[in-house]
Amino acid sequence: MSNPAEEARLAMRRGEWTGPTKHTVPGYVKCNLVILPLADAYDFLLYCQRNPKPCPLIEVTDPGDPEPRRCAPGADLRTDLPRYAVYRRGVREQDVTDIRHLWRSDSVAFLIGSGMTFDDALERAGVPKVKTWVLRTALATVPAGKFSGPLAVTMRCMTVAQAIIACQLTARFPLSHGAPIHIGDPAGIGADLEHPVFGEPVKEIPHGSVPVFWACGVTPQLVALQSKPELMITHAPGHAFITDLKADQTCIP
Amino acid sequence: MSNPAEEARLAMRRGEWTGPTKHTVPGYVKCNLVILPLADAYDFLLYCQRNPKPCPLIEVTDPGDPEPRRCAPGADLRTDLPRYAVYRRGVREQDVTDIRHLWRSDSVAFLIGSGMTFDDALERAGVPKVKTWVLRTALATVPAGKFSGPLAVTMRCMTVAQAIIACQLTARFPLSHGAPIHIGDPAGIGADLEHPVFGEPVKEIPHGSVPVFWACGVTPQLVALQSKPELMITHAPGHAFITDLKADQTCIP
Repeated sequence: MSNPAEEARLAMRRGEWTGPTKHTVPGYVKCNLVILPLADAYDFLLYCQRNPKPCPLIEVTDPGDPEPRRCAPGADLRTDLPRYAVYRRGVREQDVTDIRHLWRSDSVAFLIGSGMTFDDALERAGVPKVKTWVLRTALATVPAGKFSGPLAVTMRCMTVAQAIIACQLTARFPLSHGAPIHIGDPAGIGADLEHPVFGEPVKEIPHGSVPVFWACGVTPQLVALQSKPELMITHAPGHAFITDLKADQTCIP
Repeated sequence: MSNPAEEARLAMRRGEWTGPTKHTVPGYVKCNLVILPLADAYDFLLYCQRNPKPCPLIEVTDPGDPEPRRCAPGADLRTDLPRYAVYRRGVREQDVTDIRHLWRSDSVAFLIGSGMTFDDALERAGVPKVKTWVLRTALATVPAGKFSGPLAVTMRCMTVAQAIIACQLTARFPLSHGAPIHIGDPAGIGADLEHPVFGEPVKEIPHGSVPVFWACGVTPQLVALQSKPELMITHAPGHAFITDLKADQTCIP
């Protein structure tokens, strides 16, 4: 009696799905991933508590246990994402599609809500799919222990009427970054259009549209670059973990 | 340029205010308090993450720092509550009004949203002040490390029409326990009317009214009784910490 989320995870586990997860398996809560040794887990858990907009926690696993027992029983976080990014002391190594060789007896996994979760809810509410940019900003997150760094955001361009709908709708998903943090001039938050976290520079904001900015779960990857933990494993940007939770049933905690 | 919250805290610091905080200093976010040694802080932080309805975190202080720098700069958590409960290995000692002698260089304070925060918002929305009971339930919270225990709830009796308003309104305050967890028959959650956490037994539900139940920040005190940490200091039930945050500006994170 599998569900579409489990089917997707099993395809990733078999190595048959190594691509992005955006606009796939609609209706299920998608997550960004951060894995750290237990010695760094308290500081990072506190970092998430202090920064709930970029880092809303869906689940934190017990040390050494790769199964997210509450949001996806039976899943294995070492194999069930399509692609992982590996940071050693702030340096990103080559991406991998399986992290069984990197998993330790004291590894703790943090599942952080993803803005991908509300993409199909936006579409159902009349806000069409648009390109999503991931950008650095000039805003600092609140430090905790060894962790600090700038806020990353996603940017989506839409009409003002759609932006109003998007504000109302995404406010209902606080565990997926919630309402926007900014609307309008990218300079207002120091969003770096020329050097996106990945992909091409933003050439122009389409005429008649307004950019809308949400806190982004790629923020911990910027934190890794700055804070240089011994080993941090994350999802590769755009390649999320898909839980068994239904997005429409996981709005307000 | 003090505000009513700071004035209240200073009166508590001077020992002039040792009584309850319910229906006082309306409009400001009130908090339950838990203080633990750093060695227990990771397990408790994880416990709060896994139980956001009873334990929504407003702020967690850095080890040894008694000042909640984000929600009440200048305050001192060792003196600025009217009354504290002290638990050693699960045994509650005599209450105190000052914990400077118990504070350690590795003490970590957790400020947990209180249902008192929305009391005046309920009144403004047309739901009159009613007696609030604090009850044990048969529901277990999600364990984390050494911490586990039953869920405590508050119970308020009101008309059905008021209960509908209360659901809508308190859902806007997820950091103060959010929407109710149950409405109606107390047996549905095993609420123990005969042995409240404090105060007199509940004799009867007033005719024509329905009981409405919210997760309660006294839950960690039941956890202390069951999990028996070396030293846990909390607010005395009903005697909350008052932050500088405005409740109406702290709805959805």
